[in-house]
Amino acid sequence: MGMVGRRDIDDLPKNAANYTALTPLWFLERAATIHPTRDSVVHGSRRYTWLQTYRRCRQFASALTTHSIALGSTVAVIAPNIHALYEAHFGVPMAGAVLNAVNIRLNASTIGFLLGHSLAAAVIVDQEFFPLAEEALKILAEERKSHYKPPLLVVIGDESCDPKNLEYALKRGAIEYEKFLEGGDPEFSWEPPEDEWQSIALGYTSGTTASPKGVVLSHRGSYLMSLSAAVVWGMNEGAIYLWTLPMFHCNGWCYTWGMAAMCGTNICLRQVTAKGVYSAIAEYGVTHFCAAPVVLNTIVNAPAEDAILPLPHLVHVMTAGAAPPPSVLFAMSEKGFKVAHTYGLSETYGPSTICAWKPEWDSLPPIKQARLNARQGVRYIALEGLDVVDTKTMKSVPADGTTMGEIVMRGNAVMKGYLKNPKANKESFANGWFHSGDLAVKHPDGYIEIKDRSKDIIISGGENISSLEVENPLYLPPAVLEVFVVARPDERWGESPCAFVTLKPNIDNSNEQGLAEDIIKFCRSKKPAYWVPKSVVFGPLPKTATGKIQKHVLRTKAKEMGALKKSKL
Amino acid sequence: MGMVGRRDIDDLPKNAANYTALTPLWFLERAATIHPTRDSVVHGSRRYTWLQTYRRCRQFASALTTHSIALGSTVAVIAPNIHALYEAHFGVPMAGAVLNAVNIRLNASTIGFLLGHSLAAAVIVDQEFFPLAEEALKILAEERKSHYKPPLLVVIGDESCDPKNLEYALKRGAIEYEKFLEGGDPEFSWEPPEDEWQSIALGYTSGTTASPKGVVLSHRGSYLMSLSAAVVWGMNEGAIYLWTLPMFHCNGWCYTWGMAAMCGTNICLRQVTAKGVYSAIAEYGVTHFCAAPVVLNTIVNAPAEDAILPLPHLVHVMTAGAAPPPSVLFAMSEKGFKVAHTYGLSETYGPSTICAWKPEWDSLPPIKQARLNARQGVRYIALEGLDVVDTKTMKSVPADGTTMGEIVMRGNAVMKGYLKNPKANKESFANGWFHSGDLAVKHPDGYIEIKDRSKDIIISGGENISSLEVENPLYLPPAVLEVFVVARPDERWGESPCAFVTLKPNIDNSNEQGLAEDIIKFCRSKKPAYWVPKSVVFGPLPKTATGKIQKHVLRTKAKEMGALKKSKL
Repeated sequence: MGMVGRRDIDDLPKNAANYTALTPLWFLERAATIHPTRDSVVHGSRRYTWLQTYRRCRQFASALTTHSIALGSTVAVIAPNIHALYEAHFGVPMAGAVLNAVNIRLNASTIGFLLGHSLAAAVIVDQEFFPLAEEALKILAEERKSHYKPPLLVVIGDESCDPKNLEYALKRGAIEYEKFLEGGDPEFSWEPPEDEWQSIALGYTSGTTASPKGVVLSHRGSYLMSLSAAVVWGMNEGAIYLWTLPMFHCNGWCYTWGMAAMCGTNICLRQVTAKGVYSAIAEYGVTHFCAAPVVLNTIVNAPAEDAILPLPHLVHVMTAGAAPPPSVLFAMSEKGFKVAHTYGLSETYGPSTICAWKPEWDSLPPIKQARLNARQGVRYIALEGLDVVDTKTMKSVPADGTTMGEIVMRGNAVMKGYLKNPKANKESFANGWFHSGDLAVKHPDGYIEIKDRSKDIIISGGENISSLEVENPLYLPPAVLEVFVVARPDERWGESPCAFVTLKPNIDNSNEQGLAEDIIKFCRSKKPAYWVPKSVVFGPLPKTATGKIQKHVLRTKAKEMGALKKSKL
Repeated sequence: MGMVGRRDIDDLPKNAANYTALTPLWFLERAATIHPTRDSVVHGSRRYTWLQTYRRCRQFASALTTHSIALGSTVAVIAPNIHALYEAHFGVPMAGAVLNAVNIRLNASTIGFLLGHSLAAAVIVDQEFFPLAEEALKILAEERKSHYKPPLLVVIGDESCDPKNLEYALKRGAIEYEKFLEGGDPEFSWEPPEDEWQSIALGYTSGTTASPKGVVLSHRGSYLMSLSAAVVWGMNEGAIYLWTLPMFHCNGWCYTWGMAAMCGTNICLRQVTAKGVYSAIAEYGVTHFCAAPVVLNTIVNAPAEDAILPLPHLVHVMTAGAAPPPSVLFAMSEKGFKVAHTYGLSETYGPSTICAWKPEWDSLPPIKQARLNARQGVRYIALEGLDVVDTKTMKSVPADGTTMGEIVMRGNAVMKGYLKNPKANKESFANGWFHSGDLAVKHPDGYIEIKDRSKDIIISGGENISSLEVENPLYLPPAVLEVFVVARPDERWGESPCAFVTLKPNIDNSNEQGLAEDIIKFCRSKKPAYWVPKSVVFGPLPKTATGKIQKHVLRTKAKEMGALKKSKL
């Protein structure tokens, strides 16, 4: 009978009734309509409902507009996990502007760099961090000289903080956040973006090696990843989410917007402690939280007086950021937390792969479960392409669990690109894939597992050693809290592993030599001889502002040790 | 500091790494990658895994391609809820073509009309329905005369059916479905559509009044509604879904594609009986199914020997299609089913509003819960606009629970339009909204509640009477199985309600006059006098092929009754 011409079957154009741009802003409007009286955000004695949050966000957008902040503007927020940063995730894009949630652990000169690079039109800063912001702006002003135009400066008062910083900020001319909101209209009529590809957020990579890169995200991607993140976690309507993960990390892995989609409740947490986490579970009925493995470590090793156990109900935990040692996963599951292990980057809106749990794992011994769950897994729904490839040929590595390649990704979960950085964009988007820089294997079941960052691989006697593979068994001795392994120059083998170890607080560390020997002996019983660390160094580990280990500092130390040894020989 | 020019913050174009068209086809590829060995589709003794389904669908697409069926073609499938119809939901769009899942309850002349209207390039028909399809094509051929080109004809063999139909079909030149698949390549390399607005499916409205209209849906909308439908129902990964709802109804309310997104298992059901539903729950661990209120009615009224109670676990049921009487909702919940009540149309990819349950309802008496849950509720995530308006002014009605207006909708959940029907498109998309034709009120809590189809309103003495409002209490007398109320001409009042009633099978109906009086008396105790039916008619109710009540038949009968009464007076 022939074909329906595309003229017929496809000539039904988009119109105002059947098409609208995807944006997470819709989630907020919906939450306010369906659950106007349900708690949206709880921060200490502050408690907002979804209707209130919606009105405050519209007020926020309206107030920005009165300051001529609109399409194309960037608004920086420097704050811990408090209500105002949550509101900024909606208020800023409702004004058409782009949100830059700044990492509060950065130093003033780095923040100065970011504010300059993004040309922030407004800086909204928590009172505790006002001096830091002021210093950052001072550095920027000195650098810019006559080109410097001071941004709109808003300070967020917080009842739980020392009032002195607030008083100081007000004296220095900042507008108090609530007063700033009062300048806006809670009935402000926001519009979805004309084009869903429009930018919604900008986040800077932590820059362990080079200067920070500005990752730009779209309304479309944020919408899709918010839903993906809820679906893959099995998060349901009305979830109670604890803000352990900083909102300034990839917009809280999209759970900022996602909690509005779920019409759930956000429990803010100014500072993350094991006690704070256990208390929030008991007090607010927290059902979900996200945390880096180091936080999980703190939770499982919390002193008895800080822990509230057994848990009143199953608590879902999502972890990512570094591969968690199986022993930590195991300890969490023993305490009644269900840990979903995910992996991703700022460039993929946060986690974009998950180690999807299989029912057939239920019957395995817990430590085997933990080992399976320590893998990075499979793609989120919105990440349409995930592979491990030989970057020279772009061919998939065999799914044999041993051949290493680079993790590459593509699809709607991938960023728009780096701000003002064509060179980095060209490199990271080469061959139609986003290049993660992470080295992994693909297992026979299709799950990927990170073996290392490209630069973290240890090459010993021509053999590749994954530093992660050396680290994992070193978590098993009960005295060990944290371990990181890097390459150390080795006269004979080129490189050999060097382990940096932090012991648990209650461990007697007077006999480091003996402990080191125990650890080496332990490792030797688990791994090939050439994988065994040649040196074990004790002490606290150097970390970046985002809590990531500064491997380059460890590498420098390891180099010195190699040189030392060499000179001794 | 001024603004980042849009040149910078927004000049980061789409590329192969960071953008791909939204299509539910991605869900299938993902399910096959993550859960290759998990059951995807179970139909009697047939059992497929997700990897097998993925390969079969690619084979399907490849086979279509060898028959020159591609972009712009329409493929009609005439089948009950069996594996082949499920596979068509992926196989057809993988070839770039558009799926038309045909209602098997239609007669040959209507099916002939649809096949001609959509210019179906292939007709894939279940063996049981082959004679029907043959007759439909014969009617079409006669009408088209020399313009008629016979479509590719494929017959689906089913072991559970009488082999005679299959033999007959093969003799008549149809290709057997498995043989057809063999002509395709299971490694066929499908591509997402270039434009996500591309059409994926075509479904005809049941046409209770005019000739059927062809509703055209897009890849984008299907993707978004598949996720929305899972999220609003709290459906999690690995759900076991029973196909009680025909897949030819709005593509099974998007759960066809949605089950692939959830990596769940589809349990096929050739014929829906209460016994079949209870057995599937017990045998396969069914967690979810969808059904029209009339099916719920059958389930709650099932004879003891057909029911397997108590249920082995909580079973989620989604209902829509007509407002379910609160008494039926109540009976379902008493049996351990959790009923989600939704509302939508073919034009909105199936349900697009849900009566979202509120925790504060938990403590209410069950009948009050059922009454709240009988409302049509609030918008799905992908339906960005939902309102009840005065269509003359397009202004929202007050949220007072009494002022009626028309339900209008807009957003990504709304169809592309009607195929080759510019007049209907213009009308239904007037003023930037899709007009549902349903009359509703908005309650103070923002939930909408249908009071009637525009044409179902009864106007008595200048007052509007909602036929639904008259029907609801009439479900309470234990003898009543089904009730429909329409307008009857009334000399004094213009119109008055006339009730058509089906009694439960075990009821003695020898004294209809007495029963009618009881019902009228009962209604009088619940409703204003002018709402009380003037006539009660007993007997089976006339239904369309989709199981919808044919109100126009009832209206004709009611008119005759009015005339009769008039002549008597």
